[in-house]
Amino acid sequence: MSHAPRLDRARTRMETVGVDVLLLSVGADLPYLTGYEAMPLERLTMLVLPRDGEATLVVPELEAPRVVPEPDAFTIRPWSETEDPIAIVAALAGRPGRVAIGDRTWARFVLALQEALPGATFGPGRDVVGALRLRKDAAEVLALRAAAHAVDAVAAEMRTRPFAGRTELDVHRELVDRMLEHGHQRPNFAIVASGPNGASPHHDPAARVIGDGDVVLCDFGGTMAGYCSDITRMFVVGEPTAEIADAYAVLQLAQEEAFLAATVGTPCEAVDAAARSVIADAGFGPNFMHRTGHGIGVEEHEDPYIVAGNATPLEPGFAFSIEPGIYLRGRFGLRLEDIVVAAESGPDRLNCASRDLAVVG
Amino acid sequence: MSHAPRLDRARTRMETVGVDVLLLSVGADLPYLTGYEAMPLERLTMLVLPRDGEATLVVPELEAPRVVPEPDAFTIRPWSETEDPIAIVAALAGRPGRVAIGDRTWARFVLALQEALPGATFGPGRDVVGALRLRKDAAEVLALRAAAHAVDAVAAEMRTRPFAGRTELDVHRELVDRMLEHGHQRPNFAIVASGPNGASPHHDPAARVIGDGDVVLCDFGGTMAGYCSDITRMFVVGEPTAEIADAYAVLQLAQEEAFLAATVGTPCEAVDAAARSVIADAGFGPNFMHRTGHGIGVEEHEDPYIVAGNATPLEPGFAFSIEPGIYLRGRFGLRLEDIVVAAESGPDRLNCASRDLAVVG
Repeated sequence: MSHAPRLDRARTRMETVGVDVLLLSVGADLPYLTGYEAMPLERLTMLVLPRDGEATLVVPELEAPRVVPEPDAFTIRPWSETEDPIAIVAALAGRPGRVAIGDRTWARFVLALQEALPGATFGPGRDVVGALRLRKDAAEVLALRAAAHAVDAVAAEMRTRPFAGRTELDVHRELVDRMLEHGHQRPNFAIVASGPNGASPHHDPAARVIGDGDVVLCDFGGTMAGYCSDITRMFVVGEPTAEIADAYAVLQLAQEEAFLAATVGTPCEAVDAAARSVIADAGFGPNFMHRTGHGIGVEEHEDPYIVAGNATPLEPGFAFSIEPGIYLRGRFGLRLEDIVVAAESGPDRLNCASRDLAVVG
Repeated sequence: MSHAPRLDRARTRMETVGVDVLLLSVGADLPYLTGYEAMPLERLTMLVLPRDGEATLVVPELEAPRVVPEPDAFTIRPWSETEDPIAIVAALAGRPGRVAIGDRTWARFVLALQEALPGATFGPGRDVVGALRLRKDAAEVLALRAAAHAVDAVAAEMRTRPFAGRTELDVHRELVDRMLEHGHQRPNFAIVASGPNGASPHHDPAARVIGDGDVVLCDFGGTMAGYCSDITRMFVVGEPTAEIADAYAVLQLAQEEAFLAATVGTPCEAVDAAARSVIADAGFGPNFMHRTGHGIGVEEHEDPYIVAGNATPLEPGFAFSIEPGIYLRGRFGLRLEDIVVAAESGPDRLNCASRDLAVVG
């Protein structure tokens, strides 16, 4: 696919928001607009997109062979080991009044560019690219659905696998392997949090051996054909206690209510509130201490955030996670997550894997 | 280990360079100074280190359980989903005249902090932390040596493995698995570039099937106990042609000359020149288009860079790669890499795996 149309949409948006030049480096905006992903290394890669001029991709000479050329969309400007990439970017930028710079650009490059372009005001790149990325088109929803189905398959397979006696790290590696087997180009993360470790929502898999009766939280995702997956499913070794089953029933209801609430026109914060009120009513309010979800697309976390204070109404094509949780310190943690796309026909849940608590050996 | 002494050294350095407050987020400076690695996500994690005050680690509430507390070194300030972390950091920073901000901090946070601290001048965090990280102490050299020996073991094992008929991706995954088996906490990269793909120094492993006669470049490394490994070894399927063997002999000599040149007091650029002149004399000058090496420590690439134009003389404890290459477009690529530490007793080569071209099946 040619990225020229997307670059043109970016130029139109630059006109709307009054930006003279867009500078993009590491992060998802660059592959979104050019197909090329910068290496997160100390040699600067940067797309220079003037509102009224040709786009140029400034790239380290030894990484230039990785770029798939699109002569209709951008020119490639390789720089050699003894050149100064900041000077090259500044020259291509001209004398801009307002610069938008990619959100994840390293501080060292931001500061150097501010010095090299002393007349310019710098603003966030998401003012330009964020608006484009927010509404997914049909091809993008298809890509998200394919990625979701791949992790659905992994989740289904895990229901038949043994957990007891294995370390979290071992299960983590199996998740990573299975994501690759099911077509992911890159696993992004695989949280495996068993027993009390589950009470830390972003727990790193560790040497802890999973035992009888343990609740195991598996939250994993990756990138497939440029778009991200993200799913959380819950496992328990042996029959769950009534306490676990009851808390899980609350969580499942909360997730369902948030899903049903995610209709076009509903503010993001109302989707959050739908999940939160179910959990609070059951007495677990303080045990759900994170937002209900995040946008997803070329990036694992992006706008829109499903959080109190975000009054943005959902539009068709907004894609996001719905992932309430209940965390009991020192005991266990529960979370249930699907990716949902807002659509005129109602919320479209991309994940189909069973949402029941899986009883495993 | 307590990180209080390192924080004190940072404060001393801040005094020397006239910095009032140091702000660190994602990247290696934060774990170097606190033991904590920020998640590279949209929720801000930031260490606020005033030159004359207490250090505070501002961290998302749901990531706070990941922090190992060190009350003698820093206070933890968790922020909840509805708080503004920028305002919290700005309040802790006070009214600084000069701020140093971590090199990899995301642009969105740099811009927001510049707005929140309008009276401050922002400079690069490496002015403070870079100087500390440059000279490795005995414990750090030990950690680098352990990481080097782990990838040495992987390189040795690969000499006995079949390559023909396998995809680059398959070999890539084996390298990743073996790094984990040999104690790495995290594989950082594993380049497998066969035949003509080898001519792109940063080639991504692909579906290409390795065939008879192919030269295969394997460049891999990861993190072990917080310190990085990085090694490149060369493989050939079946007996190498005279052309390959001759070019490899040139490369091996170039790498050896650079190693011998890496004595305390020698400028970094002279180490680069030592490798480059051997390769140029053999007629391959234009085929070695990257610098000879990069520093290594808690980060895979850091100061000092072994590159033309860097006149910094090597000091005891400087750790860096020596990795010349010869790349023949459309044919094959060769590179040979070890990690070396400058020492009064002469250059200390951390990698011991055979540097001979490995003939494999």
